[in-house]
Amino acid sequence: MTSVAFIGLGHMGAPMAANLVKAGLTVRVFDLVPETIKSLTDLGAIASSSACGAAAGADVVITMLPAGKHVRSLYLGESGGGEGKGLIDVVAKGTLLIDCSTIDAQSAQVVAKFAVEKELEFVDAPVSGGTAGAAAGTLTFICGGSDTGFEQAKEVLSNMGANIFHAGGAGAGQVAKICNNMLLSVLMVGTSESLQMGIDHGLDPKVLSEIMKVSSGGNWTLNKYNPCPDVMESVPSSNGYQGGFMVDLMVKDLGLSQEAALLSNSSTPMGALARSLYVNHARQGNGTRDFSSIFEQFANVQQIKNKG
Amino acid sequence: MTSVAFIGLGHMGAPMAANLVKAGLTVRVFDLVPETIKSLTDLGAIASSSACGAAAGADVVITMLPAGKHVRSLYLGESGGGEGKGLIDVVAKGTLLIDCSTIDAQSAQVVAKFAVEKELEFVDAPVSGGTAGAAAGTLTFICGGSDTGFEQAKEVLSNMGANIFHAGGAGAGQVAKICNNMLLSVLMVGTSESLQMGIDHGLDPKVLSEIMKVSSGGNWTLNKYNPCPDVMESVPSSNGYQGGFMVDLMVKDLGLSQEAALLSNSSTPMGALARSLYVNHARQGNGTRDFSSIFEQFANVQQIKNKG
Amino acid sequence: MTSVAFIGLGHMGAPMAANLVKAGLTVRVFDLVPETIKSLTDLGAIASSSACGAAAGADVVITMLPAGKHVRSLYLGESGGGEGKGLIDVVAKGTLLIDCSTIDAQSAQVVAKFAVEKELEFVDAPVSGGTAGAAAGTLTFICGGSDTGFEQAKEVLSNMGANIFHAGGAGAGQVAKICNNMLLSVLMVGTSESLQMGIDHGLDPKVLSEIMKVSSGGNWTLNKYNPCPDVMESVPSSNGYQGGFMVDLMVKDLGLSQEAALLSNSSTPMGALARSLYVNHARQGNGTRDFSSIFEQFANVQQIKNKG
Amino acid sequence: MTSVAFIGLGHMGAPMAANLVKAGLTVRVFDLVPETIKSLTDLGAIASSSACGAAAGADVVITMLPAGKHVRSLYLGESGGGEGKGLIDVVAKGTLLIDCSTIDAQSAQVVAKFAVEKELEFVDAPVSGGTAGAAAGTLTFICGGSDTGFEQAKEVLSNMGANIFHAGGAGAGQVAKICNNMLLSVLMVGTSESLQMGIDHGLDPKVLSEIMKVSSGGNWTLNKYNPCPDVMESVPSSNGYQGGFMVDLMVKDLGLSQEAALLSNSSTPMGALARSLYVNHARQGNGTRDFSSIFEQFANVQQIKNKG
Repeated sequence: MTSVAFIGLGHMGAPMAANLVKAGLTVRVFDLVPETIKSLTDLGAIASSSACGAAAGADVVITMLPAGKHVRSLYLGESGGGEGKGLIDVVAKGTLLIDCSTIDAQSAQVVAKFAVEKELEFVDAPVSGGTAGAAAGTLTFICGGSDTGFEQAKEVLSNMGANIFHAGGAGAGQVAKICNNMLLSVLMVGTSESLQMGIDHGLDPKVLSEIMKVSSGGNWTLNKYNPCPDVMESVPSSNGYQGGFMVDLMVKDLGLSQEAALLSNSSTPMGALARSLYVNHARQGNGTRDFSSIFEQFANVQQIKNKG
Repeated sequence: MTSVAFIGLGHMGAPMAANLVKAGLTVRVFDLVPETIKSLTDLGAIASSSACGAAAGADVVITMLPAGKHVRSLYLGESGGGEGKGLIDVVAKGTLLIDCSTIDAQSAQVVAKFAVEKELEFVDAPVSGGTAGAAAGTLTFICGGSDTGFEQAKEVLSNMGANIFHAGGAGAGQVAKICNNMLLSVLMVGTSESLQMGIDHGLDPKVLSEIMKVSSGGNWTLNKYNPCPDVMESVPSSNGYQGGFMVDLMVKDLGLSQEAALLSNSSTPMGALARSLYVNHARQGNGTRDFSSIFEQFANVQQIKNKG
Repeated sequence: MTSVAFIGLGHMGAPMAANLVKAGLTVRVFDLVPETIKSLTDLGAIASSSACGAAAGADVVITMLPAGKHVRSLYLGESGGGEGKGLIDVVAKGTLLIDCSTIDAQSAQVVAKFAVEKELEFVDAPVSGGTAGAAAGTLTFICGGSDTGFEQAKEVLSNMGANIFHAGGAGAGQVAKICNNMLLSVLMVGTSESLQMGIDHGLDPKVLSEIMKVSSGGNWTLNKYNPCPDVMESVPSSNGYQGGFMVDLMVKDLGLSQEAALLSNSSTPMGALARSLYVNHARQGNGTRDFSSIFEQFANVQQIKNKG
Repeated sequence: MTSVAFIGLGHMGAPMAANLVKAGLTVRVFDLVPETIKSLTDLGAIASSSACGAAAGADVVITMLPAGKHVRSLYLGESGGGEGKGLIDVVAKGTLLIDCSTIDAQSAQVVAKFAVEKELEFVDAPVSGGTAGAAAGTLTFICGGSDTGFEQAKEVLSNMGANIFHAGGAGAGQVAKICNNMLLSVLMVGTSESLQMGIDHGLDPKVLSEIMKVSSGGNWTLNKYNPCPDVMESVPSSNGYQGGFMVDLMVKDLGLSQEAALLSNSSTPMGALARSLYVNHARQGNGTRDFSSIFEQFANVQQIKNKG
């Protein structure tokens, strides 16, 4: 039976690890915040007192951390330079390493390089689907790594997700994810301004949404996540923009996308503009609201007040 | 049997009128260019020597013209002021007027206002679907007008199109269409820059497209009209950006959308940016190429040359 | 002695007319709001009961109105079509017509065309300099019209302004003004975001302003109108963004600039973006604040609160 | 007499070092390209066979290198981690270190931190003014560092430049420079699109430039570097956009500015848009032309061809 070490039990990591336990795997867990460990051991996970302790002896190590620097220092040791004392130094040859964090592609590539030198498979596998998808086990994983690594990772990840893609070699999972999320931000802003312009001309946003959804303006936000209040049920826009995917997290992902654009000298006028609009929105105090609240940047304050 | 007057037999109008003839309707046609009339009379349409001649006595008048000024002067008379000598002065009470041109909403509303005063129904019904959809009878019509007018128009339009939407009152069809096409331009530019950034990082655009298509970046351009060469078959990007929907026409529609944004004092940062990028693209000599060629603004000239 | 008719006595028009009276000219005034006339007659102006009454017999007619439609209907008659009953029908041949309103260039050109047919000189002469400049007689006039018309206009305008430019033929004054004001909005936004980025990195905005002012980032806003609070004295940013040039007026001018860009099929990515940012700003309730308050879109709410 | 080590003798470094020699200082020079050393020794400089060789015993070390990674590895040793073998390990306490490279602020701050630990003054002093200013000794230096460091640096730098600013603490020189250059790019794009819109409406760009220069659109590009051909003499736009400041270098500086914006979570919509437009321009084959050639992105190809 596969034994898994799961490190990083935040809002996403905890329910993901829970699904591994439920699937019958042996799961050793660690987090810097002890309370989060308790919820997992209640389900049957085994507590570890350190990340390296959890990883030693595991067949698969899964990490879910905030940023590239945390991933580098955990896998490669404090300085991130591969000089020992990292996870790659304590696991056995052949161990499969899967990092589910959303981080910069460079960090993923550096860790992969050092892992390969130790004869370890490393797969970057950032997720999308939010906490709801994590709980339901319906996440999407976008993976980067070798064919072998991907096939092995797919088996484990299928306990936590519904769609598992292979984007390419090391780091490709991260690149594909931020390409997607950059595009998502553009869809969200573009859909918001189009709907609001229709409203400004007296159109019913429900009718306009129905038309565009099945026309050449059709996109994911119209299908699943309409940003205009009261057009769809059970989406954040119809619930005061609570829940969902926070503006601050979109700002983070757009930061990663712009970092990637700088590295490759790419031109991303729409993505860069979306980032600026989202930063303005966050700076105005909307950082913890759902990212579809960008719609309010285009609405009239008067309209919003009348709603409220 | 319904008798229809069809005025304006250009690339779109001619195949649309042909479908009405094929459906067994009596169709009187007129165009300023006599040659275009011939192709329709060969199919069974009746030639008229003037627009008013075609319209007099018809149950339904359909127009397909280049711009708002043509629509206003045809329906309302030379000065566009409703002082007589326009189509609305020669048709019988109860005649249904359908304008399928893509024009500014204001012009549509002005014509509708004068038509209503003469007890005529006027429906603005701009189309999407291109010349291929016009020939196949699978166009989408987005209509503005009264419920009665819409229901009547729907019956006639169903001979030429597959989807017929009612966006709202007079002018709403035009507003909905330009909202949609503005959003389309944003999808196209956003998808182009995202795909190119992936390519710049070594990803295969086919793989990246497949991933984003089923993720939150999913949109019409990924489904039907991928702008990156050789990702999809039978789309303009895989055919040197020939055919399809011309850059110049997208510039026209984006001009209409910005005109609408000015009238309603709306903010459309993405749509306005898309317009500027498309104008630059057109000015560089790409006006008659397909609008997905905006992808080349992001690609490296070197990459493009190597393709060629 | 020159006799002048001055029509439109708003915040700008009233002090402008007052300077003509002070210069010793015979000034007949009219405005739809009777109260505004009183302040001028107190200074020595002669009240008229209608615009045409003021204009009849005058050597020079000066108008200062809100928008193109007002200018067209005043000069050309209600319908704006030149069919009589406009100012051009009541003044004597050779009368000099000067419109100081900021309006669309097309309207200016239409009025000029009809005026020329009546052997009248028409000069479009939009102003900049604000109410302070109007009171002090230090306005800038940017004129469009014939050389003869310009030379005549210059003599009269010199009683109200310090700089009088000849931009070209009919309408050129309007075009030059909106080109300038579009560029001004870009300078203001660009300077704001640059200063805030410096602040975010710990720089003193005074020091950074001093450096950029004499470097290649130097521009009018750094010299005269720094948007960052407490960098310069006696500017709106150091006075809670009160006074100065209202956001709503900048939105109007940016609307005119985009209207012009649509007519000439020009690409103005920066100007279009500035317009969207200013519309968002206005919609958030900042319409009556000074236009340098756009700086707050980039600042942290927290920083702003700490100031307050 | 002050002894200076000058490391990095490229297009900028060589003429800068030459001015130090001409000023009578003892100058030891080093570059990885031996040919560049020869030109300096002809003037009286002393050749060194390594950077450390040049620096050992010098009172002042000046470096002029391409990017942050070169600066870090030269001062701090290969790994950039301060573990010895860098310039800071071979110079005497009290040596003044001046880095004139344009690099990211973080690198400047890291080097400064390690230098201070060794009781060395480190000043980041990026320059503007181009190769012409380097030759003429009229460069502008924007410095970051302690007051003491700045005062000492000012004395040496005054042999090479006309304006020497103190922007703040370590790294502040770099931040101020990229704030300025980001703003410069916005001025250049905004001025280009405004001038072209005027041209599209029939205005003479010389007349329009004269008007905006003394109005609220006034900025450095109108004063010194008009992007429209044949408006000013002796600027790149009147010389086929040859010479001046290359597009590729502007792309580099805009990359640094966006990197800084990401670090401080700043919103820079105009700067980000300028970067995308410049990257597109570079990718179309204009990388080695002067940065004012962005004007051609807005002009009509037809207009450009007629010129040529």
